[in-house]
Amino acid sequence: MQLFFKYNWMVRDEWYQWCEDLNEEELLLDRTGGKGSILHTLFHIVDVEWSWIRLIQDKTDFQDSFDAYKSLKKVRELNANFHLEVESFVNKWDANMEGRIFYDTLSDGSVVTDTWGEVMRHIIAHEIHHIGQLSIWAREIGKSPVSANFIGRGLSSYSNK
Amino acid sequence: MQLFFKYNWMVRDEWYQWCEDLNEEELLLDRTGGKGSILHTLFHIVDVEWSWIRLIQDKTDFQDSFDAYKSLKKVRELNANFHLEVESFVNKWDANMEGRIFYDTLSDGSVVTDTWGEVMRHIIAHEIHHIGQLSIWAREIGKSPVSANFIGRGLSSYSNK
Repeated sequence: MQLFFKYNWMVRDEWYQWCEDLNEEELLLDRTGGKGSILHTLFHIVDVEWSWIRLIQDKTDFQDSFDAYKSLKKVRELNANFHLEVESFVNKWDANMEGRIFYDTLSDGSVVTDTWGEVMRHIIAHEIHHIGQLSIWAREIGKSPVSANFIGRGLSSYSNK
Repeated sequence: MQLFFKYNWMVRDEWYQWCEDLNEEELLLDRTGGKGSILHTLFHIVDVEWSWIRLIQDKTDFQDSFDAYKSLKKVRELNANFHLEVESFVNKWDANMEGRIFYDTLSDGSVVTDTWGEVMRHIIAHEIHHIGQLSIWAREIGKSPVSANFIGRGLSSYSNK
């Protein structure tokens, strides 16, 4: 599980660097699909990762809207604020946590169950999916996207659970 | 590892169904980014998954170009042809295979090493990334994309290694 999180954090950081070459107008431009803009997508990734990890532990999640984070600097700061707690949880992950049940109350009041293992994979797939969207927008701007390769990043040298 | 593969196979199958509502022109239309068209992307996902699983086992990989598979029917047939072998390999996966070394000769003649665990995660992330690209093109066409949610698919009922 950890290796995929480390992969996502590396790729996300490279996208922040990639964004440095774009002006704020390009970062906030409303585009087709996904969350509508590059910066909103990056904000959404940070929000969703932290919120799920908080929710399964019965802690309060993140409720702020993107309106208060409309600059690359602010999104990076939010990321940094959340990252220590996220990383700590991920690093403590072990196989015994796989089957724990999270009771999720949906907007219509019904309750569904997810295992913690499902939620963790949901977070991982969620980020990779949105990063794929960014890669299309990058080409539309005329720029090469960040590599999505998992191999070639030295990730096997990390321990994984 | 298996759960992510099962997720990808479910989502991929839903994209094939999604494609049934589009005519061949839309499926083959050259778009910005990724592999250039919806069908080429789906072909590429099938190709890359099978090829990597063959390569790490020192078997021949898939060399055909997309030119011979330019219909939804042909891509699905190719998928079906490869799937039994892919699924069999994935289902036999266990933690002892994580650290096995694959020697990869790059186009410039240099040799790099990847662990089998890295290659398997590379295959997984590769598909999710490309599916994210499809979701943007779906919105450009004016259609809702297939859900990328990992939760809500009953995946926790499968065993995972």
